[in-house]
Amino acid sequence: MFRRNFEDELNDLHVRFSEMGMMVNEAIYKSVNAFINHDKTLAKEVIEADARINQREVDLEKRSFEMIALQQPVTGDLRMIVTVMKASSDLERMGDHAVSIAKSTIRVKGNVRVPEIEQTLAEMATKVKQMVEEVLDAYVKADMKRAREIALEDKNIDAFSGKVYKMCLKQMQSDPDTIVGSMDYMLVDSYLERIGDYVTNICEWIVYLETGKLVELNANAKEDNIF
Amino acid sequence: MFRRNFEDELNDLHVRFSEMGMMVNEAIYKSVNAFINHDKTLAKEVIEADARINQREVDLEKRSFEMIALQQPVTGDLRMIVTVMKASSDLERMGDHAVSIAKSTIRVKGNVRVPEIEQTLAEMATKVKQMVEEVLDAYVKADMKRAREIALEDKNIDAFSGKVYKMCLKQMQSDPDTIVGSMDYMLVDSYLERIGDYVTNICEWIVYLETGKLVELNANAKEDNIF
Repeated sequence: MFRRNFEDELNDLHVRFSEMGMMVNEAIYKSVNAFINHDKTLAKEVIEADARINQREVDLEKRSFEMIALQQPVTGDLRMIVTVMKASSDLERMGDHAVSIAKSTIRVKGNVRVPEIEQTLAEMATKVKQMVEEVLDAYVKADMKRAREIALEDKNIDAFSGKVYKMCLKQMQSDPDTIVGSMDYMLVDSYLERIGDYVTNICEWIVYLETGKLVELNANAKEDNIF
Repeated sequence: MFRRNFEDELNDLHVRFSEMGMMVNEAIYKSVNAFINHDKTLAKEVIEADARINQREVDLEKRSFEMIALQQPVTGDLRMIVTVMKASSDLERMGDHAVSIAKSTIRVKGNVRVPEIEQTLAEMATKVKQMVEEVLDAYVKADMKRAREIALEDKNIDAFSGKVYKMCLKQMQSDPDTIVGSMDYMLVDSYLERIGDYVTNICEWIVYLETGKLVELNANAKEDNIF
């Protein structure tokens, strides 16, 4: 009976972690849409919803701690709990970056827009969203092979990131009126790039879950990053 | 005898965590000096030293996990181990930001320099370094009161951050030749600001260590941030 309860609790922990991932995915998606469409109302929604994400992280911390303290799980189960403890920080920070994107949206005051850069950022965001969804799916399925593949996709995000960086520099140099706006494009670019890094972290946690080994996926790619 | 070993291990864990903190502090200090003095050799040193910081995080993870699995610590001790597990991620990310500052230094190619902005960044970096040292000291002493005070100091970092942001925008608008260089100033500004946020996170972990409560220090300040 005791054992059955533990398994229920562990399952509940996984479900709550996945839910947190979905909240974060929604925040990223909404924040980028808000930014591209200059939709301040949607941006405020993202900022307000962040409290729920932070609260969920606290909740996962508490549950994990209590499960370890009260049930003293064995190696495999302990590893699952530790993974939730660590990876929930990554999710929380992805949420923070969505908030930063939302804040950029609110700061914008009718600046000149650059459709070409906005289009590229939208493509980049779509790719990031896809990676976030894939990594949550790989987590639920404990699919280590898929996790390794997803981490490799971060190179595409880094390529986007370098491209947007260059577009912004060029734009600022050719038209000083777009400097303030281009700065915001550049910041949003850097937030999306960081979100890609956090996805890679979660991929590493999935590998850890299966093997007990702490690996660094994609270390070389990180060195080439601009941000 | 068993118990004595556990206390030795716990003490060792604290020492190793503090050492990691000192490595990170050194990385931040060196990276900013490298940036201000355009010292690419020093910047490369920071990038190379980061592997040791990452390795230390992996080492702390492993030790923490084994201590939990093999010794099944009670609440207070478990809390200390969990704190090391979580806060070492914050340290590791602070190290990553030092690397980002170092990378900016290497990217610079004889751009026009703006002494006024460099001076402000140097002051900001000195303040950040001081906060990092203070938080490591508060951790060693388990000084919760001090931790709360240090978290409040993050407001000063945010004020610097806003100031540098405005200076950079103004600079770019008045002299297009400084756009590339100002972008790097702005990025370094954002990395230092984030390091301040991670210091706040560690302050929160010190409070947790003492009270078992997960608190959010400085939540309002975060909302006012540019980055």
